[in-house]
Amino acid sequence: MMNDVNYTMLCDFYELTMGNGYFLSGLHQKYTYFDVFFREVPDGGGFAIAAGLEQVIEYIQNLRFDKKDIDFLRGKGCFDERFLRWLKYFKFTGDIWAVPEGTPVFPGEPIMTVRAPAVEAQLIETYVLLALNHQSLIATKANRVVRAAQGRPVLEFGSRRAQGADGAIIGARAAYIGGCAGTACTVSDQLFGVPAGGTMAHSWVQMFDSEYEAFKTYCELYPNNATLLVDTYNTLKSGVPNAIRAFKEVLVPKGITKFAIRLDSGDISYLSKQARKMLDEAGLQCCKITVSNALDERIITDLLMQGACIDTFGVGERLITAKSAPVFGCVYKLAAVEDENGRIIPKIKVSENTAKITTPHFKKVYRIFDRETGKALADQLCVYDEVIDETKPLVIFDQFAVWKTKKLTNFSVKELLVPIFEGGKLVYKKPALSEIRDYCAQQVELLWDEVKRFENPHNYYVDLSEKLWVIKRELLNSKNEE
Amino acid sequence: MMNDVNYTMLCDFYELTMGNGYFLSGLHQKYTYFDVFFREVPDGGGFAIAAGLEQVIEYIQNLRFDKKDIDFLRGKGCFDERFLRWLKYFKFTGDIWAVPEGTPVFPGEPIMTVRAPAVEAQLIETYVLLALNHQSLIATKANRVVRAAQGRPVLEFGSRRAQGADGAIIGARAAYIGGCAGTACTVSDQLFGVPAGGTMAHSWVQMFDSEYEAFKTYCELYPNNATLLVDTYNTLKSGVPNAIRAFKEVLVPKGITKFAIRLDSGDISYLSKQARKMLDEAGLQCCKITVSNALDERIITDLLMQGACIDTFGVGERLITAKSAPVFGCVYKLAAVEDENGRIIPKIKVSENTAKITTPHFKKVYRIFDRETGKALADQLCVYDEVIDETKPLVIFDQFAVWKTKKLTNFSVKELLVPIFEGGKLVYKKPALSEIRDYCAQQVELLWDEVKRFENPHNYYVDLSEKLWVIKRELLNSKNEE
Repeated sequence: MMNDVNYTMLCDFYELTMGNGYFLSGLHQKYTYFDVFFREVPDGGGFAIAAGLEQVIEYIQNLRFDKKDIDFLRGKGCFDERFLRWLKYFKFTGDIWAVPEGTPVFPGEPIMTVRAPAVEAQLIETYVLLALNHQSLIATKANRVVRAAQGRPVLEFGSRRAQGADGAIIGARAAYIGGCAGTACTVSDQLFGVPAGGTMAHSWVQMFDSEYEAFKTYCELYPNNATLLVDTYNTLKSGVPNAIRAFKEVLVPKGITKFAIRLDSGDISYLSKQARKMLDEAGLQCCKITVSNALDERIITDLLMQGACIDTFGVGERLITAKSAPVFGCVYKLAAVEDENGRIIPKIKVSENTAKITTPHFKKVYRIFDRETGKALADQLCVYDEVIDETKPLVIFDQFAVWKTKKLTNFSVKELLVPIFEGGKLVYKKPALSEIRDYCAQQVELLWDEVKRFENPHNYYVDLSEKLWVIKRELLNSKNEE
Repeated sequence: MMNDVNYTMLCDFYELTMGNGYFLSGLHQKYTYFDVFFREVPDGGGFAIAAGLEQVIEYIQNLRFDKKDIDFLRGKGCFDERFLRWLKYFKFTGDIWAVPEGTPVFPGEPIMTVRAPAVEAQLIETYVLLALNHQSLIATKANRVVRAAQGRPVLEFGSRRAQGADGAIIGARAAYIGGCAGTACTVSDQLFGVPAGGTMAHSWVQMFDSEYEAFKTYCELYPNNATLLVDTYNTLKSGVPNAIRAFKEVLVPKGITKFAIRLDSGDISYLSKQARKMLDEAGLQCCKITVSNALDERIITDLLMQGACIDTFGVGERLITAKSAPVFGCVYKLAAVEDENGRIIPKIKVSENTAKITTPHFKKVYRIFDRETGKALADQLCVYDEVIDETKPLVIFDQFAVWKTKKLTNFSVKELLVPIFEGGKLVYKKPALSEIRDYCAQQVELLWDEVKRFENPHNYYVDLSEKLWVIKRELLNSKNEE
């Protein structure tokens, strides 16, 4: 459904005015290097989860201007006819490196690097950012919610409040990568294999002459998947008693022990404890309790701290929109260009805000692991031709406080950016979605608890190599002198 | 591009389990009435802007289960084969009433009512809510931002931070309805006619040997639309002086007076005043100043209060995600069913939270206008067969404080809900997008300033007719007695 859509025209108009300008200035074949990186983790968290690469790959593979696109652009009256003719044959011919989906990532490090002729690299900016920003946002949020639930399944329930159709459809994919157990969104199952499930809304209960009849009918129709919504009229006075009666009359005689109630309003902590007591007293210890209603990682943490009796969480609007911090701020910045001899010339963007100064050059990113604990110690950005020697001690330092150094020994390193496209050709084997989800869980395990804390987490080190730092400092100095 | 997508499978899975259940229980042909309404205006505002109807219409018209959809559902193992066969011929045969897009709307009133056989009405819930929630959210936010800008054009710049592709594409449509003057999103122009524009990113400036050369080249290429981004290196020391030089050397000699600079970082208030001074001193009073960088209605209000010299605002992530309140909370609640004689039986959903109790029955919504000022005084929900007589005084009262009454005389009324589908057939003439935008602006004009205040606005009255209130009270009492 969404897989074959051509999103070429989903670009900021300035990508096209610049493209036309590069074309007319003879710069369009000049090779450029752009980094995708973000500056802040949403919700003040210690790390983010990268996601959205698969959609970027599909976008790049479908990239082309149809006749109607070119006609539309001609109608805008600001593009040169030679450029428009050239667009007819436009495709992506460059190289892309990226971190695999599900990788924990940190501010200031490239999560994708694009090397391509200027017009190509520029044109893909908008969609590349959109795809990575959206899914990294939701995967990161989902991972927070899932960690708050401490092993209890979290189901993504937010389609109706999502920001547009693929906010829902692709949002459910990203939530699954982040660790959700499933979704309510049917088409996300059909397209991506995110397990979809669901049982009833309040309207089901209202459609029958009584709540009991609604529950009984449901248990008869779906004996293997009966989750009864108990808050249509009065949770403790009618909902739970009617559910107990339906379970005992329809399911228990059949030897079925897999069923649940769902609480969707009121004080979840109190109601879940009371409901648990009523279920247990009725001999239905096997009955699970699912809760939903404007949950997020903070409310879940609080509920569990208060001893709420919850087996499964359904999380809607606050996950699918990442309500508490609904923007993931990846940017796309020029890091280098190639001169006519193929020499790579680093480029920098200066800002009065030091955090907004870019790190120049074509780079690689190493993640450094402690051999003893297996945990991630730091990431280091290096110039593309540098190699970290695992056999020698490595001194890392903070680029914003260079006197803060740390000497690492007994470590191993892993390169985070892997080749995705080479010369316009896909060279990456896309993993299955369940593999991405497993990989994400494994990689998050490799972070220290201090980095995973929700409030005021430890700032994971993202440092520059000595060589890269010198290049950055020199470029900054030269810009200051200009 | 997005127009022909079939979103039938974009539904919560429980719509299908309930559908199968209604089918097997013989309830699937029972006529139901569902209301779409919301309970709170985002950002504590006084009103919202309804949007998204056009996408609901397209959705309904494309509604069908393909063979691959039915095969997928069969594979889930929980649907009856008779139901699956029936789905093959599934289409929408019901009636829909809705408020036109661009209408200011208030909590607790239906903005759409669906009358259809149970399975149909239930199945469309997810997408109907998604479309109305998403676009009403963005249109409402855009309207706030536009009002804050006090007549200065606001451009929507947020595609790269949108939550998914149609978060960007359709979000730009909603922003335009809310009053934005245009968008950066090219395809929203192509698909919907939202005027798209844009000029350059920082990378354009970095691609040339000097900032001046980048500016000069741009002015030569686009003499009629030169907005130069002046903050790549240093706004006041290099950006503005280089821009002035380029304007004077390239554009002024040609007699061109339409050009601008854009500020995208730093203290916008200070920089805009300094830049204005420098431009004026250079004789370039005609040069406009556009600003962008994480703006929203609060920051814009503050900037203008400080006398910032700004002609145009570019608003990105905080508009396209409605960052400060990114969820629009429309719900879809059963309000009535028809018995076998076609009699309409009102239905209610009770909640411990009084604001969550639904208003039962098949309803109409009147907006009451003061004949003297033309301003909207209140909305009244009535039973479907009631008619307000404009020639007689009307006493309205607050349903949550019935002693608060108000006697209206010299008023006119207008029905807000208009027929969209009748018996599955579209009977509504979709207005052009620019008409919707104009209608929105006109209708917002009819609200009192007190309702339009950003902080602590007056609560506009949404009342029930005496007849409807009695029905609601009796249903509530009967539920309490059960």
